[in-house]
Amino acid sequence: MPDILHKVGIKSSSLDEVYKALTTCEGLAGWWTNDTKGEPGKVGGIVQFRFGAGGFDMEVVRLQPTNYVLWKVIDGPEEWIGTRISWELKEDGEYIIVLMKHMDWKEPVEFMHHCSTKWAIFLMSMKSLLETGKGAPNPYDVKIDNWN
Amino acid sequence: MPDILHKVGIKSSSLDEVYKALTTCEGLAGWWTNDTKGEPGKVGGIVQFRFGAGGFDMEVVRLQPTNYVLWKVIDGPEEWIGTRISWELKEDGEYIIVLMKHMDWKEPVEFMHHCSTKWAIFLMSMKSLLETGKGAPNPYDVKIDNWN
Repeated sequence: MPDILHKVGIKSSSLDEVYKALTTCEGLAGWWTNDTKGEPGKVGGIVQFRFGAGGFDMEVVRLQPTNYVLWKVIDGPEEWIGTRISWELKEDGEYIIVLMKHMDWKEPVEFMHHCSTKWAIFLMSMKSLLETGKGAPNPYDVKIDNWN
Repeated sequence: MPDILHKVGIKSSSLDEVYKALTTCEGLAGWWTNDTKGEPGKVGGIVQFRFGAGGFDMEVVRLQPTNYVLWKVIDGPEEWIGTRISWELKEDGEYIIVLMKHMDWKEPVEFMHHCSTKWAIFLMSMKSLLETGKGAPNPYDVKIDNWN
């Protein structure tokens, strides 16, 4: 099954700060969508990410402070349900490296192309949040195409 | 074998203009790397894309004006050799939609994560070139991590 893969390197940060950007509502709201609710810091916790009308509900499947986060999509667009999103963090010199995988898509449909490019935009938003204090979460996100 | 997928939608453009951005050295130099040489507009043509010390040589495998372009990587980093890159163009309302696939990677290595995010950056550069007249090709490209 096809996966979406991405990588960014974040300067002037720490493993702890990047991990918090993935495991607190405040952190997630700073780079992905400002409408983030739930319990991202607890295994088994549910997180609601909302974008205008739609959005995603994730279950936190695994947390390994401060190196690994795994979510499973339990509600949202049909193509996303059952997919998993992993975040691997590591230090490399002056960078915190973020390796992201959005796994288990059933088919490489046009929506998967869209989501892949859009994930890159949001990872750059996370990088900006941590490096400068200012991300570009929904609804302030960079638009890429006819679907947003 | 895993693929990289991306999509952008370009406003204020035409199929012909986007196709030219993929099949002329001037077009490619405007969004990917300013050091682009060769024959991107001819089936069987070789194109040299250079980024500082390294780069990629592509063979143009298929051209279907103004909807489809297929390249095969014949020289460059080991992970890229033998991979193929396709570009599908279509109109959707006020947008020209670009669907890109970088196919046939052997393994989902860290370099593939890097290249996936970097492709998104370059597709946004192509969108910017066509919408505003100004792209951000190498060496003016947005940096994403410790590898560039």
